[in-house]
Amino acid sequence: MEELVGLREGSSGNPATLRDLWGPCPRIRRGIRGGLEWLKQKLFRVGEDWYFLMTLGVLMALVSFTMSFIVGRVVQAHKWLYREIGNSHLLRYLSWTVYPVALVSFSSGFSQSITPSSGGSGIPEVKTILSGVVLEDYLDIKNFGAKAVGLTCTLAAGSTIFLGKVGPFVHLAVMLAAYLGRVLTKTTGESENKSKQNEMLVAGAAVGVATVFAAPFSGVLFSIEVVSSHFTVWDYWRGFFATTCGAFMFRLLAVFNSEQETITSLYKTNFRVDIPFDLPEIFFFVLLGAICGILACAFLFCQREFLNFVKINPITSKLLATSKPLYSALAAFILASITYPPSLGRFMASRLSMEEHLNSLFDNNLWALMTRNSSPPWPTEPDPQNLWFEWYHPQFTIFGTLTFFLIMKFWMLILATTIPMPAGYFLPLFVLGAATGRLIGEALSFAFPEGIVAGGATNPIMPGGYALAGAAAFSGAVTHSISTALLVFEMTGQIVHVLPILMAVLMANAIAQSFQPSFYDGTIIVKKLPYLPWIRCRKINSHCVIVEHFMNCTVTTLAKDTPLEEVVKVVTSTDLAEYPLVESTDSQILVGMVRRAHLVQALQAEPPSWAPGHQWCLQDILARGCPTEPVTLKLSPETSLHQAHNLFELLNLQSLFVTSQGRAVGFVSWVELKKVISNLTNPPAPK
Amino acid sequence: MEELVGLREGSSGNPATLRDLWGPCPRIRRGIRGGLEWLKQKLFRVGEDWYFLMTLGVLMALVSFTMSFIVGRVVQAHKWLYREIGNSHLLRYLSWTVYPVALVSFSSGFSQSITPSSGGSGIPEVKTILSGVVLEDYLDIKNFGAKAVGLTCTLAAGSTIFLGKVGPFVHLAVMLAAYLGRVLTKTTGESENKSKQNEMLVAGAAVGVATVFAAPFSGVLFSIEVVSSHFTVWDYWRGFFATTCGAFMFRLLAVFNSEQETITSLYKTNFRVDIPFDLPEIFFFVLLGAICGILACAFLFCQREFLNFVKINPITSKLLATSKPLYSALAAFILASITYPPSLGRFMASRLSMEEHLNSLFDNNLWALMTRNSSPPWPTEPDPQNLWFEWYHPQFTIFGTLTFFLIMKFWMLILATTIPMPAGYFLPLFVLGAATGRLIGEALSFAFPEGIVAGGATNPIMPGGYALAGAAAFSGAVTHSISTALLVFEMTGQIVHVLPILMAVLMANAIAQSFQPSFYDGTIIVKKLPYLPWIRCRKINSHCVIVEHFMNCTVTTLAKDTPLEEVVKVVTSTDLAEYPLVESTDSQILVGMVRRAHLVQALQAEPPSWAPGHQWCLQDILARGCPTEPVTLKLSPETSLHQAHNLFELLNLQSLFVTSQGRAVGFVSWVELKKVISNLTNPPAPK
Repeated sequence: MEELVGLREGSSGNPATLRDLWGPCPRIRRGIRGGLEWLKQKLFRVGEDWYFLMTLGVLMALVSFTMSFIVGRVVQAHKWLYREIGNSHLLRYLSWTVYPVALVSFSSGFSQSITPSSGGSGIPEVKTILSGVVLEDYLDIKNFGAKAVGLTCTLAAGSTIFLGKVGPFVHLAVMLAAYLGRVLTKTTGESENKSKQNEMLVAGAAVGVATVFAAPFSGVLFSIEVVSSHFTVWDYWRGFFATTCGAFMFRLLAVFNSEQETITSLYKTNFRVDIPFDLPEIFFFVLLGAICGILACAFLFCQREFLNFVKINPITSKLLATSKPLYSALAAFILASITYPPSLGRFMASRLSMEEHLNSLFDNNLWALMTRNSSPPWPTEPDPQNLWFEWYHPQFTIFGTLTFFLIMKFWMLILATTIPMPAGYFLPLFVLGAATGRLIGEALSFAFPEGIVAGGATNPIMPGGYALAGAAAFSGAVTHSISTALLVFEMTGQIVHVLPILMAVLMANAIAQSFQPSFYDGTIIVKKLPYLPWIRCRKINSHCVIVEHFMNCTVTTLAKDTPLEEVVKVVTSTDLAEYPLVESTDSQILVGMVRRAHLVQALQAEPPSWAPGHQWCLQDILARGCPTEPVTLKLSPETSLHQAHNLFELLNLQSLFVTSQGRAVGFVSWVELKKVISNLTNPPAPK
Repeated sequence: MEELVGLREGSSGNPATLRDLWGPCPRIRRGIRGGLEWLKQKLFRVGEDWYFLMTLGVLMALVSFTMSFIVGRVVQAHKWLYREIGNSHLLRYLSWTVYPVALVSFSSGFSQSITPSSGGSGIPEVKTILSGVVLEDYLDIKNFGAKAVGLTCTLAAGSTIFLGKVGPFVHLAVMLAAYLGRVLTKTTGESENKSKQNEMLVAGAAVGVATVFAAPFSGVLFSIEVVSSHFTVWDYWRGFFATTCGAFMFRLLAVFNSEQETITSLYKTNFRVDIPFDLPEIFFFVLLGAICGILACAFLFCQREFLNFVKINPITSKLLATSKPLYSALAAFILASITYPPSLGRFMASRLSMEEHLNSLFDNNLWALMTRNSSPPWPTEPDPQNLWFEWYHPQFTIFGTLTFFLIMKFWMLILATTIPMPAGYFLPLFVLGAATGRLIGEALSFAFPEGIVAGGATNPIMPGGYALAGAAAFSGAVTHSISTALLVFEMTGQIVHVLPILMAVLMANAIAQSFQPSFYDGTIIVKKLPYLPWIRCRKINSHCVIVEHFMNCTVTTLAKDTPLEEVVKVVTSTDLAEYPLVESTDSQILVGMVRRAHLVQALQAEPPSWAPGHQWCLQDILARGCPTEPVTLKLSPETSLHQAHNLFELLNLQSLFVTSQGRAVGFVSWVELKKVISNLTNPPAPK
C-alpha cells in the first residue's frame, strides 16, 4: 500500500522525492509507474463485483472438490471394509448396511439439531427468496457448516441411498453469496439495497450448479430456469463469469490431484461422430422423450402423494416429529438391505457408485448384442474397464436388470426424498433417466442389429446416445427445464446428438408441464411456502380483468389527523408491518407509509410530554421525528391483471397500493393475485 | 373436419347413428374415438401458439435453405465462368470482377427502390422495436421480398464481398413473426396486445439466428443477448421450441438434398478428445481472448469513424444520397479487384468461399509444421480435400498469408459495411476471428512442436482449437455477447474446448465492453435511433437520485373544466400523441389520458351544436363520447432513478406520469432518463 501511495505521488506531478531521483532511467520508471497507475484505476473501475464473483466461484469450487475428495475416501473405506470382512454373510450384510445407516442418521441428526431448515435440496426455498419473500435465517452463514457436513455424510452413504448434491450446492452457494455480499457492503460502506443482493444470489445459484457438474453454460441456464421466472442479460453475464471461475477451479483441482491429465469433461463419452444416428432414429428419440415425460408425471404424482402419506400417517408423522434420526436410520436400513449385492442388489448394479452408473450407462458397447451369445462372468469386484458387466445377469439378461433397476429405484428414490437431511434429488433423476434411455436404446439395437437404414454402410444403433437423451429428458421433465439438454453435452464433452436430444427434452417437458407442477414447485406447494402462480394458459384473457375487480378494499389507513388513541387501537389490533399514511380522514390522499416498528417506538418514547388538554394526533408524532417512507409505485383500479402480475413478477414485489385520483382505495398482494388467477383457471362452479 | 364432427357426436352421448352401429366392435371403436377426442382437446388446449412457433421455424428454415441453394448455384456458375473463360488475364479479371459488381449494385438498387429501410443487418432496428419503440413499416411483410432478394444477391457475390446473412435473417424472421401474429389475431378474433406481439418477435429473432447456423441453443441465447436487455423464462422456452423446429427442418432439407447422410453440425471438426489441450495452454487461450478484445475495439472504432467519414465526405455523401447502386458498384469493384486470385488474392485465399474459409481454418492439420520442410503445390483449383493449401505461399509462408488476410480483410470489411444493401456482418467477423486464432495457434505450434508439457506422451498443440476460440472471442467482443462460445460448439459438433474458449470470450468481452459500444449499439447511435442507456457502473449511486430531480415538470394537462377555445389552442400548438386529463385546473388530480386523434375528431365532429351562449368546456366533449384511457401506472417524485430505469426497461415503456398525492406534477421519458444517466456517468464540469 505504501508502495502505491509512493507511486501515486510520483506520478501526480508532486515535487520529485529522493526515491524518484535515485536509480537509473527515472523517465522510463515514471512511465511504467504511470502505466501501472492507469491499469490499477482501470481494474478498480470495473467494480469490486468481479472480484466478488470470482471469489464466490473459487470458494464454491474448493468446497465442492473437498467434499468430493472426502466422500471418495469414505466410500473407499466402506468398500475396503466390505471386501476384507470375510465371507460370513451376516458380517458382510452388517458391514454393507450399518455404514449408510450410521451416516444417514448422523447427517439427519446433526444438520437438524443445528438448523431445522437445512433438510432437502434448498432450491424451492431459494426460488421463494429470489421472488422477493424474506425467509428469516435461511441464508445465514451459520447454516453453511450444518448443510455442508450433513451433505458430505449423505453423499458418503453412496449409491445405496442414491442421492446427489445439486440442490444443496445451490443453497450453499447462495448462502455464501449472501454472506460475501454483506461483507462487501460493510467494507465499502455502501448502503444495502435489495436489487444488488438479488443479483448476487442469482449468481450464487448459478455457481452452485456449475461447481457440481463443471458445466458453466448449463449451470447458468439451469439455475435460471429453476429459480427465476425472468432475468436480465446483465445477471446472465455475471453468472457466466462466476460459473467459469468455479468450473475452471473445480477441474483444475482435479488435475492437481492427478485424477486426470488436463481439463476435460466429467463423464467423457466416445460416440461415433461422422454418422451419430440414422435419420429415422429421430422418431425413437422423440418417443423416448414422451415416455420420459409420462414417467416424470408418474414420479411427481407418486412423490407428492407419498410425502402427504408420510405426513398424515400417525406412525411416520410421530417419528418425524419426535426423532428424525430414527426415521432416517429406518429408511436407510430398508434401502441398504435391498441393495445388498448378494441378494437383490445383484440385479440392480448396486456395487457401482452413481458416477459409475452414469459412466457405464453412457458407454459405447452394444450390451444386448454382445451378451446374446456369450455371457461375461460376474466379477468379484466391479471391473473399472468394463463397468457394464455389473448390469448383466445370465438369467435376467440386460433387459431384466435395467427394468428391475428402474422399478426398484423409482420407489426407493421416493422413499429417500422423505428423509429429513441435506440431499440433492437431481442426480438420481438423471441416473433413472439414463437407465430408461439405455433400456430403450438396447431394445432398439437388439431389434435392428444392422442399424435402421438398410443398404450401404451399416450404422449400428448406439444405445449410449439414448441413455444421454433419457437422462436429459427425464431430469428435464421432472424439474421443468430444458437446459438439461445442454448439461449432458457439457458433462460428456460431445454435442453430436444436439437436435434429437433437444427434441426429446422438449417432448418430455410438454407432457410433464401440462400435467404436473415441477418437482421444486411441488415442494413449494407441499411446504406451504408463498408463491405467485403463472398465468400460463393463453385462452384466459388476463388483459380483460382489471385490478378493481380483485383488489382488497379493506385497507387500514392512518390519517394525519387520526387521534392518538385511535392510532394505538389500530396498532394493537392489527399486525401489518407498514401502514399507509393518508393526508386526512376525509380526503384519503395517500402520502406515504409508516412502519409499525417506528410507530410503536414513537408511541412508547414520548408519553410524558402528552399534555392532557391538547387533542394529540398522528401528525404530532410524525413532526417529532417518526420517519415515513414514500410510496414509489402505485397501481390504478384500471390496471389489468396481466400488467399487475408482470409488475409483481418483474420487480419482485410483495404488495402494492391502489390509488384512484390520489386516494388510497385498496391494495393488491400475492394473496389476491393467487385467488384471481385460480378463479380464472378453474372458474367457480355456478350454483 | 366432417370426420371430426362425426367423432364428437359419437362420443358425446348423442343417439347412436347408423355409422356408429355399423362395423365390428362398436365399443372399442367408441373407446378409440373418445381417446382421439381427448387428445384433440389436449392438443388444442395448449394454445395455437405452438403451431405458430412451429410454422415460423419451418418457414424460415425453408427460406434459409432455398437461399443457400440458389446462392450455391450462382456461385458455381461464377466459378465455371472463371475457369472456362480461357487464359487471357483481361477476360479472367473481368469475369472475376463484373459478376460481384453487378450483383451488389442490383442488390443495392433493388432493395433500396422498394424500401429504404432494408439496408444493413436489421438487428439494431429489431433491438429498438423490442425495447418498445414503434418504427413505422419496418416490420411490414412487403419488405420481406426486397430484403430476401437483396440478401440472395449479396451472398451470391461470394467471399469477394465477404458478407454474411445472420442480421438480415433476424430481420426477416421478425417480419414473418409479426405477419403471422397479425394473421393469428385476425383468425382467432382476439384483440391485439402488445406484450403478446413482443413474445412473438422475440421468438422470431431466435429463429433467425438458429436457421442460419442450425444452432438451436445459441440461436436463442445470441438473439437474447443482442436484442434484449432482459427476458422471461417463458419466452426462452418458446424460443427453444421454435429454433428446434427451424434447425431440424434446415438440416433435414440438407439430408433430403443428399448433401449429407444424416443430421449433423454445419462445420464438423475432428479434434483429439482425450487430451484436447495441455493445461498451460489455458494461458494462451486467455491471451488470445485479450488480443481479440483489443482488435475488436480497433475494429469498432475504425468502423464508426469510417461511417462518419463517408457521411461527411462531400463525394461519398453525394453518391450515397443520389445514386446508391453506383456507390455499391464502386465499392464492390475495389473489393473484387483486390481479391483477384492471380494478383493479391493469391495471398489471402480468395478462391475459397466463406464456408470453406471456416472449414479450412478449423481443420486439424498443423500447417506451419507440415510446410516447414516441404511446400505443397498451388493447385489450379482449390482442392476440396486439402482446402488449407490455399492459405500457403512458398515465399510468404502460412504466417504471411494469414497476416495479410487479416490486415486486408479488416479494412475491406469496414468498407463493405458502408454499402447500402441487405447484408449480415456476423459471419465475416467470425472468419476474421478464426484467422486471428489460427495465426496465433500456428505460431504456438511452431514454437512448441512437441507440445507444451514436456515428458511422457507429447500432445502437439492443435491450432484449430485456437481458430475456434478466436472466432468466438472476436465475434463475441464485437457484438458484446458470450453465447458465441456456445455457437462454435454447436457449429462444429465438438465441445471439448468449453472452458478455454469461454475464458477467451469472457476476456475479449471484458476488454471490448469497457472501451466501446457494441457493433449494434454503435449502429443505433450512428443511425440516431432512440435507445435507453444502461446504468452500468456500480459506483454511480442510482439509488440516491430520485425522480423529482430529473423529471420534466412542464407537463401540458387538459382539465375537465378547460374552455374549448383553450383546448383547441393546446391541440394546435403542441403535437403530443396523448394529453393527461386532470379533474380541474385547480386540483390537477390526474384522472386519465385522452388521445390527440380522438380529441381532434371530437372537436371537428360537432361544431354546429355548440350553442354560443353556453361556456363549453372539455367536460362536454368527453360526455359526448370522446374516449379517455386510464393511467395504469404512475411514478412518485420519490421513486429512485434505479427503480424508474428498471420499470422502463422491464415493461418496455416510453414515458410515465409522475403524480404526487394524486396531482400530475411531471413526466419522465427516455429523454429525461438519458440526460440524467449521462450526467451521472460524466458529471458536468463545474464552472
